[in-house]
Amino acid sequence: MSHEPRLTRELRTLLNTQRMAALGTLTDEGAPFVSMVPFAIERAIGCLVIHVSALAAHTRHLRVRPRVSLLVCVPERPDEPVHDLHRVTLNGCARVLEREDADWAACKSAYLDRFPDVAFMTELGDFAFVAIDINAARHVSGFGAARSVDQDELRLVLMSNVVPSAT
Amino acid sequence: MSHEPRLTRELRTLLNTQRMAALGTLTDEGAPFVSMVPFAIERAIGCLVIHVSALAAHTRHLRVRPRVSLLVCVPERPDEPVHDLHRVTLNGCARVLEREDADWAACKSAYLDRFPDVAFMTELGDFAFVAIDINAARHVSGFGAARSVDQDELRLVLMSNVVPSAT
Repeated sequence: MSHEPRLTRELRTLLNTQRMAALGTLTDEGAPFVSMVPFAIERAIGCLVIHVSALAAHTRHLRVRPRVSLLVCVPERPDEPVHDLHRVTLNGCARVLEREDADWAACKSAYLDRFPDVAFMTELGDFAFVAIDINAARHVSGFGAARSVDQDELRLVLMSNVVPSAT
Repeated sequence: MSHEPRLTRELRTLLNTQRMAALGTLTDEGAPFVSMVPFAIERAIGCLVIHVSALAAHTRHLRVRPRVSLLVCVPERPDEPVHDLHRVTLNGCARVLEREDADWAACKSAYLDRFPDVAFMTELGDFAFVAIDINAARHVSGFGAARSVDQDELRLVLMSNVVPSAT
């Protein structure tokens, strides 16, 4: 029986259910740039994983400036209001992984568990896995219901080996 | 009968159908920050319109650094692939509008046409309309189908008084 607080559970569900995020990076001129990325969660490291093409702008950007931000938001539905959509902004730091890196295999595995349909892309030489370590989050669970998420809760949501304490 | 190219028509449909965008701004430390914003299009000026709270981080950010980026993406659907979702990144410059500004009434009207349910919010003193003038766009209409959108096409898509030329 879980004693996890309701908002923590909702945040976990959001991240487990939605598969795409809006990734914010910085251009060479220091301007923001937002692009779509499918993401997975690696639960031993507690990081997000994306898989990026060397040809994509966001890949160039995050190699130079690794601080990134991701928005994960439930989809809008036709004829339903959009202002109170459940969402979270995750801020963190991107690490482009080489095959030699300790985290590479685990991150690849987490990504392919979620996206088995794109296994062929992971064989292409100009793609790379990127681990994103999250250090701050802003969770909006409804209209006017915004809150910051602390490190302990982030670990609880992103890592498999953290047990919720009874509350 | 329209002679508009197919991709232009698809981009127009995307922006007319989706109501929410992922907005990229810059924090005080110069890091990217992505948040959800409902948006409308003002078709005489040819700009996007958002309505922001003085309490929100993105509002503080764009007042200091007006360069912004918006991702508009069709929603993911359960059990369907996400890597080829139809989407566009719009890069531009934000202008926080005062009631005295020439564009204020038109932008308010465009926003309330799309979001009549939040009219009450426009009466709150700590909210402001923001016009976003778009100067570049990257359109991804499917897997591996990315292209830059030029100024002429952006005008065609965002402005009501631009007539498509026969092609």
